[in-house]
Amino acid sequence: MDGTPRGLHLLDTMVELIGSGGLEAVTMRRVAAAANVSPAQVQYYFTTKDQLVAAAFRHVTDNVVRQVRSIDLPADTLDALRHVLALWLPLTESQARDARVWLSFTAAAATSPTLREIAVEVDDSLRRWFTDLLRAGQRRGDIEPELDPEMAATLLLAVVDGLVTQSLVLPSEQRAPLLDAALNTHLSTLRPASAPERMK
Amino acid sequence: MDGTPRGLHLLDTMVELIGSGGLEAVTMRRVAAAANVSPAQVQYYFTTKDQLVAAAFRHVTDNVVRQVRSIDLPADTLDALRHVLALWLPLTESQARDARVWLSFTAAAATSPTLREIAVEVDDSLRRWFTDLLRAGQRRGDIEPELDPEMAATLLLAVVDGLVTQSLVLPSEQRAPLLDAALNTHLSTLRPASAPERMK
Repeated sequence: MDGTPRGLHLLDTMVELIGSGGLEAVTMRRVAAAANVSPAQVQYYFTTKDQLVAAAFRHVTDNVVRQVRSIDLPADTLDALRHVLALWLPLTESQARDARVWLSFTAAAATSPTLREIAVEVDDSLRRWFTDLLRAGQRRGDIEPELDPEMAATLLLAVVDGLVTQSLVLPSEQRAPLLDAALNTHLSTLRPASAPERMK
Repeated sequence: MDGTPRGLHLLDTMVELIGSGGLEAVTMRRVAAAANVSPAQVQYYFTTKDQLVAAAFRHVTDNVVRQVRSIDLPADTLDALRHVLALWLPLTESQARDARVWLSFTAAAATSPTLREIAVEVDDSLRRWFTDLLRAGQRRGDIEPELDPEMAATLLLAVVDGLVTQSLVLPSEQRAPLLDAALNTHLSTLRPASAPERMK
């Protein structure tokens, strides 16, 4: 039997478990039971819980990256950012589940050297992607030319991480209004100071 | 024997355990062993793990609130914010430990209704405190009068939460430079547009 589908099935099961019960809910035994395989089969793919958590996190981020690649981004830089962030922010229940996996992973990474390395790598690549996008926007004229694109990218990533964190503890119907309003306010500070206010 | 010192000793032990090993490291049994008491004594104070995590989080935030109350804040609004945030950001190893307790608590709150209530209450009171401070700053003339103080408070809280989250996975010597530079850049956007740039 090909290992890939079973590996993927395990990943989906883990995302489901972490997304509903947090890291606490995840043990090799529970993953095995939920995926309807033996604990030995889980251990075949993941020998430690860190590996299991890292794999679930990668599974979630890979899905977002795949979606970002499959859509046509608007030419306007801030509209493009809005489109990409709409794929990641906890606007739907399934996105909230993915965001809980991110938050569980991040909390675990703060005390695990193995996970920390992955977290730093992902943060760096997101910061670089935001930096490149903002720099291109400055060339196009739709991002304020005086901004330091690296610092603006760091702050944008912080705003996104902070808003995701805050919104996850809110009732689901309060999430989208908070995320939309706060993100639009932050993004509007990136427009050239001379540009007229744009309506969303 | 008075219960308070023992309760406090348990809280310090839990903060230590969560701060070094995350929530994973915390069981009633381990807390008891580390605090040199019987598991029954831990259970006397905390009947569930959620209660234990909530108590450790409250212990950390109470300490910060006590420190904030004991210092004289500068008159300038942004200097006052800098002073307060310097007590909370993971600039020292002991602050990083407290921030890991916050992050563990927040991740757990995303899947626990009991903890979620506490998280929302703390976020709300921080947002209100920032809002009042910014509104007073607008009256004093050191905060941009066109800003919506509530929205600016929400974004400030997001920036702080996001920067704390990002810096916790960095090597400790990289934390202060990131936090200082990014926070100062964000705070400078709150100054009146007409005001000259101030040197920190």
